[in-house]
Amino acid sequence: MIELDFDRSGGVIPAIAQDATTKEILMQAYINREAWEETLKTGRAVYFSRSRNKLWRKGEESGNFQKIVEITVDCDLDCVIYHVEQIGGVACHTGHRSCFYRTVKDGQFVENAPVSVDPDQLYKK
Amino acid sequence: MIELDFDRSGGVIPAIAQDATTKEILMQAYINREAWEETLKTGRAVYFSRSRNKLWRKGEESGNFQKIVEITVDCDLDCVIYHVEQIGGVACHTGHRSCFYRTVKDGQFVENAPVSVDPDQLYKK
Repeated sequence: MIELDFDRSGGVIPAIAQDATTKEILMQAYINREAWEETLKTGRAVYFSRSRNKLWRKGEESGNFQKIVEITVDCDLDCVIYHVEQIGGVACHTGHRSCFYRTVKDGQFVENAPVSVDPDQLYKK
Repeated sequence: MIELDFDRSGGVIPAIAQDATTKEILMQAYINREAWEETLKTGRAVYFSRSRNKLWRKGEESGNFQKIVEITVDCDLDCVIYHVEQIGGVACHTGHRSCFYRTVKDGQFVENAPVSVDPDQLYKK
């Protein structure tokens, strides 16, 4: 098993999901060792939810899971990139394609992308 | 001032540096409120070094600073992307263009990019 440095940050490290084709960053979340091992094993992005204190199998509620295309790791072994195919095209619970749908402009937030799917529909599947 | 949610994670949140042109993710580090405000003010990427417990003005030693092209923020306001022009073309202290120079392949790490600059040269400027 490839070992990452989970200890330095209390058991969780950041994971970034990037669209493998467009290179758009879709979201950032956290992984613990269990999430990491399940991701490697299943080929689907698994995170660790700090607020719910449990594994978060991305897409288990919405159906919009993330298929792992490739994984890269950083120099310090304390951050990973999941290069993914985003099933359903929507990573954010707001219905935006990416969680990073706001740009800082003149000291304010400006939306840079539309809502792709009504969030009420997203969790009805 | 645009307010991010620094409190939830003890004062620091992840910041991702992404090449504004190629969309390659160059590095991931952390920012505190002071780093965030200085970044907005100066247009250069500033981070907070958790190991050194102080502001880290990227490039202050190597000369390879990061010019901010755009900043996007995520839905929870607890992660930012610095879309940057990487001066000198090298973000990683190892001399690689990106810190994410290793790919997971068949249960091992495989280097996916060469060293662009000898790291000994990087910090001689």
